[in-house]
Amino acid sequence: MKRLHLLCTLLCFLSVSGVDGKMTSGHDDARQARERKERHGKQSPEKTVYLQDYLDLDPSSSEDAAMAIGKAVDECRKIGAERLVLPGGTLNIMPDRASERYEYISNNDPSMKRIAFLLDGIENLTIEGNGTLLMLSGFVSAFSLDACRNITVRDLSIDYSHPFVAEGEVAAAGEGWFEFRFPEKAGAVLDGGILCFRDSCGREYPYLTLLEFDSRRREVAWHAHDYWLGDRCRAEKTEDGNYRIDRGDFGEAVPGNIMVFGAAARLHPAFTLLDCSGFLLENVNIWSCCGMGVIAQCSRDIELRNVKVEPSPGSGRMISASADATHFVNCKGYIRMIDCVFRNQKDDATNIHGLYMAVERVIAPDRLLLKWRNSGQYGVRFIKPGMSMELVDNETMMSYAGIKVKSVEYLNSEYAEVEFTAPLPGNVKENHVVAEDDGYPDVLISGCYIGNNRARGLLLGSRGRTVVEKCTFHTPGAAILLEGDGNYWYEQSGVRDLLIRDNVFDSCMYGNKSWGSACIAVGSGIPSRESSRYHRNVTVENNTFITIDNRIVNLYCVDGFIYRGNEVRESSDYPVCGSASDRIIINDCSNVEID
Amino acid sequence: MKRLHLLCTLLCFLSVSGVDGKMTSGHDDARQARERKERHGKQSPEKTVYLQDYLDLDPSSSEDAAMAIGKAVDECRKIGAERLVLPGGTLNIMPDRASERYEYISNNDPSMKRIAFLLDGIENLTIEGNGTLLMLSGFVSAFSLDACRNITVRDLSIDYSHPFVAEGEVAAAGEGWFEFRFPEKAGAVLDGGILCFRDSCGREYPYLTLLEFDSRRREVAWHAHDYWLGDRCRAEKTEDGNYRIDRGDFGEAVPGNIMVFGAAARLHPAFTLLDCSGFLLENVNIWSCCGMGVIAQCSRDIELRNVKVEPSPGSGRMISASADATHFVNCKGYIRMIDCVFRNQKDDATNIHGLYMAVERVIAPDRLLLKWRNSGQYGVRFIKPGMSMELVDNETMMSYAGIKVKSVEYLNSEYAEVEFTAPLPGNVKENHVVAEDDGYPDVLISGCYIGNNRARGLLLGSRGRTVVEKCTFHTPGAAILLEGDGNYWYEQSGVRDLLIRDNVFDSCMYGNKSWGSACIAVGSGIPSRESSRYHRNVTVENNTFITIDNRIVNLYCVDGFIYRGNEVRESSDYPVCGSASDRIIINDCSNVEID
Repeated sequence: MKRLHLLCTLLCFLSVSGVDGKMTSGHDDARQARERKERHGKQSPEKTVYLQDYLDLDPSSSEDAAMAIGKAVDECRKIGAERLVLPGGTLNIMPDRASERYEYISNNDPSMKRIAFLLDGIENLTIEGNGTLLMLSGFVSAFSLDACRNITVRDLSIDYSHPFVAEGEVAAAGEGWFEFRFPEKAGAVLDGGILCFRDSCGREYPYLTLLEFDSRRREVAWHAHDYWLGDRCRAEKTEDGNYRIDRGDFGEAVPGNIMVFGAAARLHPAFTLLDCSGFLLENVNIWSCCGMGVIAQCSRDIELRNVKVEPSPGSGRMISASADATHFVNCKGYIRMIDCVFRNQKDDATNIHGLYMAVERVIAPDRLLLKWRNSGQYGVRFIKPGMSMELVDNETMMSYAGIKVKSVEYLNSEYAEVEFTAPLPGNVKENHVVAEDDGYPDVLISGCYIGNNRARGLLLGSRGRTVVEKCTFHTPGAAILLEGDGNYWYEQSGVRDLLIRDNVFDSCMYGNKSWGSACIAVGSGIPSRESSRYHRNVTVENNTFITIDNRIVNLYCVDGFIYRGNEVRESSDYPVCGSASDRIIINDCSNVEID
Repeated sequence: MKRLHLLCTLLCFLSVSGVDGKMTSGHDDARQARERKERHGKQSPEKTVYLQDYLDLDPSSSEDAAMAIGKAVDECRKIGAERLVLPGGTLNIMPDRASERYEYISNNDPSMKRIAFLLDGIENLTIEGNGTLLMLSGFVSAFSLDACRNITVRDLSIDYSHPFVAEGEVAAAGEGWFEFRFPEKAGAVLDGGILCFRDSCGREYPYLTLLEFDSRRREVAWHAHDYWLGDRCRAEKTEDGNYRIDRGDFGEAVPGNIMVFGAAARLHPAFTLLDCSGFLLENVNIWSCCGMGVIAQCSRDIELRNVKVEPSPGSGRMISASADATHFVNCKGYIRMIDCVFRNQKDDATNIHGLYMAVERVIAPDRLLLKWRNSGQYGVRFIKPGMSMELVDNETMMSYAGIKVKSVEYLNSEYAEVEFTAPLPGNVKENHVVAEDDGYPDVLISGCYIGNNRARGLLLGSRGRTVVEKCTFHTPGAAILLEGDGNYWYEQSGVRDLLIRDNVFDSCMYGNKSWGSACIAVGSGIPSRESSRYHRNVTVENNTFITIDNRIVNLYCVDGFIYRGNEVRESSDYPVCGSASDRIIINDCSNVEID
């Protein structure tokens, strides 16, 4: 077993070094050579670390760069470097010698992670990518930042030699069965009659779901829906090398389309930010990752500029990130996404929200036992002494009291016992929820393309000023959704000032109905809606809606809604659904103005 | 999904509270009541914490005790308690509210663990069990001690409501197939045609291997061997509710015997000791656990007195611990096991050894990149600055140089870069191994019963004085094995002073031949044996060998062996194998005296 493992590691190393024939010409450009020469000749004006100094002498080496990256990052920390310069070309990165840390990342899956760029407690550093392609293999994260301040990462691309989803062409479909044709590189095999996907090192890539994508349009197939496959899908191999599986209650699929086997876990986001302040990601491509493209929690002042989450051009892959392109949890300050592309990721383009913990038990007049009830939030220790929080009725989602944390004790990743500075109101009870109420981020999303992905576009839940402008949406579900609930996902929302202007909503809503009731919609889980005004002050102006589904706006529990100056016209590309009377549906709202 | 999980937790809680009808009469005995009364009446002479004070008021409550245990342990830490008193009766312990920590435990499997009694940095504490049964459910450890000093645990039992192995009766066997009958509580189900075992909460208990046990003798079946089943074993359910599986190359099995599906991972030892000093375990029963009964690493001065690792009486279970009963890695001072029982565990009774790390690369004249090559040792950071180490040729396993650590940097759980205080010898090269050479424990194993388990009895690898006396062995493989190798398991051995006296070896060697070449044997992995004298000074005197296999002693690479005053007679209980000429086999040894 151990020897086999060793052999696999070696094989993997050899096989990856030749990925796509992209290997490493021009690892070192003229500017860098000049800079490095200068550095050795005289005192450098900036403290700069060159990754090339830690790599093999041969700049075209196919070595695993992980150990060199670890050493270069250590040096940055040690000398307080201002710049870390990558060499250009392709860097292969394996898990084997990468840094390691257990991470609980909200809305992703916890694990002991191997991480290439593990930056903890680093300040005022710019990572100059120089166009480097980071080609990762297996279960290893690209970047994880913990308690960092003022970090810039720019000019690089992130890809994986083996993707975390499997993509198979629908070869045929019959009564109760599908037949899939996988490319050899997908690594499809049967183990005990169960369909598995393994890379050239034997690493397995578990899956749980199926979703059909239109191979011509390169987007979610018309009205396609998720199918829960489980992790033990029986299959038979046909004589021509295809795999036949039971269709279950999946319904139809179009031969020639691509069926995507969704990753069972979100283990390695491309960029993880934990408790950071000041982060700029610029001119960065995320072609693939295992989980979200960018996930930030308990962080502030984050800007993404010209960040592309999409499949690597020429790869032929349908899927980019295996989950949301971006996601922001309990963040503050500003969140900006400018001139970005979020395409073909396996979930929403963004979700900006806080976390609710549920009251498990009232232990004392000033003390609650709280529980994370969404396992995707386990271990996110956002509650801190001195924090202002809100107490919320999980039936109406309305806040009914402000409280302040005196002390907190985390039992484990599921439970926290919190002592407050004053007695709690008498009506606090089990299943009510609490959330941070201590400053919310201002959000600007401008000039972005968002589409072709699974599910929705922007899930907006910040109570700060939020502006969405000059974007193009082509999402299969709602383009903009106001979520938030305290009974299932436990995500805090409730916008206060949302402006949606000058966008094009181009043929959205081609997916299934569970992904949103309209192009711009409320989807909050509010059991008692009549008196709830969970959201406030939403303005939709000067947008163009090119519709294939007449459901443009569907709101409830909003106080203050303005709809003006928008253009609506029908798409010619798709069949059109629904009647004109579906266009704007408003229930349980106040102060609504529609032109 | 989340709601289902919640429901399961609740169901589990309700179902466990009635386990075996053993629930909790007399949670509080008269002595305790008196003591607690006194404590409130006057200053206690000892700092004592009563767990009952943290449990529900109702002493017969079926509540999950994990949170109360966590609070009581916190209080012990806070006040520097000398005693933690358990209430007697049965305490149910669930994972949900238990403490949490990621642990790398040698020869077990790493994971983020829930732990009932998590003692870190605690000193001079006695946990008085008062006969309490700790009835754990699911994936939660009983005790884990980290950097503790002078801890005693006594008078308690540890069991699990659902075992980590599955036991099925061989109902029938035919051409190429077996049919198993599982009791309902085993939770056998088919998922995608794959045989799975789940408890009443839906938790799955993965397996990997098969091993047959004799249902009448309650021990490993005659010449039975392990069979690698994998974690995806296809099965069919028969009309009478049995499960039929392919036999593969397993061979025969006797209908009526018990087939044990071995646990896929060793996640929750009953007692884990990491970097501890001074531990006494007294009058403790380990009826079940997920991994080893007691595992100590980098610890010193450990005594087990009247510790029983065996199936709970009356449970009908065949297996106790799912792996070794005890295991000691890089320990020092003394290790004593006195009047213990190690019966029906799913692996050896003990293994006392150090760790070898392999040279992956010579980085500089005074610097090595080292790798743990046995994945079971990953993350055991035993190398520390100032430590004396030995450099060992992995072909002969002979030490050829002593070196001293200047600094160590752990890349992750697999690799360490070590700088030494002086240049290394010129012949150091890849695949040589290094180990701590800085004091070895003295070992006393006296008055113990060891048998009926899988594999071997005692694997002895300490270079300190080691005495095995007055024990009774009934092991299916070697009763006493001298192991150690630097190419596969990477376990440091090489005894220097081993005395085996006054023991009864009663009908050992009824298992398969891979479990040892004789009752007392060397099993070290030494590729070049001729010049190697890896072990030294072994004396076997005044023992009784009741043989069913004539292979009594088989040694190689030993310098100094004395065999005197032993009695040999044949067992009448089993068929006898081999000829008298097999009794003592000595190769590549020096200074051998046989009476």
